[in-house]
Amino acid sequence: MKVAELGEFGLINRLRQTATAIPDSPAQKKLVLGIGDDAAAWRGDTSIQLATVDSMVQDVHFSPSWASWTDIGAKAIASNLSDIAAMGGLPLYALVAMTLPGDMETEDVVALYCGMRRQAAPYGLAIVGGNISRAPLVSITITIIGHSGSPKRAILTRSSARPGDVIAVTGSLGAAAAGLAMLRQNKSLPPQVQAVLRQAILTPLPRIPEGRLLVDLGIRTAIDISDGLLADLSRICQASQVGARLRIAAIPIRDEVRTAFGEQAVALALQGGEDYELLFSGPRALVEKAQLESSCPITIIGDITAENTGVITLVDEQGRVSTPRQKGWDHFASS
Amino acid sequence: MKVAELGEFGLINRLRQTATAIPDSPAQKKLVLGIGDDAAAWRGDTSIQLATVDSMVQDVHFSPSWASWTDIGAKAIASNLSDIAAMGGLPLYALVAMTLPGDMETEDVVALYCGMRRQAAPYGLAIVGGNISRAPLVSITITIIGHSGSPKRAILTRSSARPGDVIAVTGSLGAAAAGLAMLRQNKSLPPQVQAVLRQAILTPLPRIPEGRLLVDLGIRTAIDISDGLLADLSRICQASQVGARLRIAAIPIRDEVRTAFGEQAVALALQGGEDYELLFSGPRALVEKAQLESSCPITIIGDITAENTGVITLVDEQGRVSTPRQKGWDHFASS
Repeated sequence: MKVAELGEFGLINRLRQTATAIPDSPAQKKLVLGIGDDAAAWRGDTSIQLATVDSMVQDVHFSPSWASWTDIGAKAIASNLSDIAAMGGLPLYALVAMTLPGDMETEDVVALYCGMRRQAAPYGLAIVGGNISRAPLVSITITIIGHSGSPKRAILTRSSARPGDVIAVTGSLGAAAAGLAMLRQNKSLPPQVQAVLRQAILTPLPRIPEGRLLVDLGIRTAIDISDGLLADLSRICQASQVGARLRIAAIPIRDEVRTAFGEQAVALALQGGEDYELLFSGPRALVEKAQLESSCPITIIGDITAENTGVITLVDEQGRVSTPRQKGWDHFASS
Repeated sequence: MKVAELGEFGLINRLRQTATAIPDSPAQKKLVLGIGDDAAAWRGDTSIQLATVDSMVQDVHFSPSWASWTDIGAKAIASNLSDIAAMGGLPLYALVAMTLPGDMETEDVVALYCGMRRQAAPYGLAIVGGNISRAPLVSITITIIGHSGSPKRAILTRSSARPGDVIAVTGSLGAAAAGLAMLRQNKSLPPQVQAVLRQAILTPLPRIPEGRLLVDLGIRTAIDISDGLLADLSRICQASQVGARLRIAAIPIRDEVRTAFGEQAVALALQGGEDYELLFSGPRALVEKAQLESSCPITIIGDITAENTGVITLVDEQGRVSTPRQKGWDHFASS
């Protein structure tokens, strides 16, 4: 079977079985989370250590025809920081592995690196190593190593959602996918709308402080939205063995997305990826406390159910119920 | 200027200047080694933490036409473990980022992963995460996180060579480059010669125990030979601000390399990469102790000099002295 037929998530499940644990190794004994969350986690001496890796490939994830190299570098760091945010962690060190074609301009590589550095610095993230290889296409693979920050401090996982939890999301959804469509289609839009959508796709804000706040308040379940609300929520449902019910009317969507894409806005919010917002669940009282204490808007959009394990149910404004089939971005679905 | 004109090492130097330190960040304060050694290193709570990343790209570093996917996976882990060996460290966790074309066979990806796991297990290395992206070519980027193993235990660096040190190497050199040439040229050789060269290029042995022994004995300078003896020795010379003198006749070269490549054998040993042996320097008494205690052969091949900073001098069997120009593998030199 070709990997395109099996799909990204089928392939990951298959590989997870292959990479079975080495019993009794010191590394295995200290492991808290292996393959299957936003980051790997293990017990360090005084806090939980985190590590995550992510790749961006030219013409798959970005194109120099619609983004500057500085923006591309910043985005690569931001999307990885988002995985650390989704663990409630703090970033420490980054390693940057790039493949570059020989005819790439040095100044473009320097611009790429400047973008990375600019995005890393405010979060205290130090770029401390990497690797450069020749290849026909530009690809950027970033590893970020972080930690929970202090002894006994908890982390956020995908597997701790419980029936009765409410589901909430930081910021708004769909603007990144709208921005990508705008740039790819070279769509003409009012300048202010363009600016908002452009910022959403090119310079997403890693929700590190929000992840910290959630842990502080006692919330334990989160994922970052990289592949779309439905795809990422279904990962929480599968990992936690629960179901989920979403109220479509509650999903926060910016006016600019509705202005630019009309009725498609809801689909962009449900299935468009790369918003890099935190999707989380917890007892209503804790989530409402987070709403009060967070400087970033937090919206309750649904709740976790005991029935329909692994299934997401959508409830529209008329109270009609449906179960979506197309979930979101799969790396191999369109290839 | 194109990156091919600047060259890999020029580009790395340029980027190192760009990725300047963020002063006063907690991560920066704990950093021991940033860009420019075999691994990044920082102070953990009870030992030095290490992290290294390396990429292998199809048709640049490997080809499924001359290696099985299992061999390719094993090699990817081995070459990264070698960077941890060159720090005198122990490996703990690996993250595997792969780009794959959609028409790749799932069974080939599983074979790749099995090869990784088989190579990781004996070293206690646990594969705990990763990323899969679609791309036209297969590439494998592996991050390994390791540590020095116990409090106050030292690490091996490139910058601690001192005049008067002898230079030594584990195992033998040139066999990996000979193996690559054999596979690429489909060269016909006696079966026993083929077996040795094939093993050298496809399943190099990470010198983890040897790196540990060197630290135990008080040796402090090492690098692994990934780009060739001359290229990697010149990195020690530059980082330590010293010169080096190599006795060509002393370089350990297997008979199989001489049988297969005759007079080219010395050039393969000097400039061929991917041997993944440890190249190190230290006081003669310590290196001789390492020779006695190591189960892997260790050969003294030259010495570190105060004069000619950054320059390698070759001394042939007749005592004639030369300074090589072509140093070894540069990712962009041939593009």
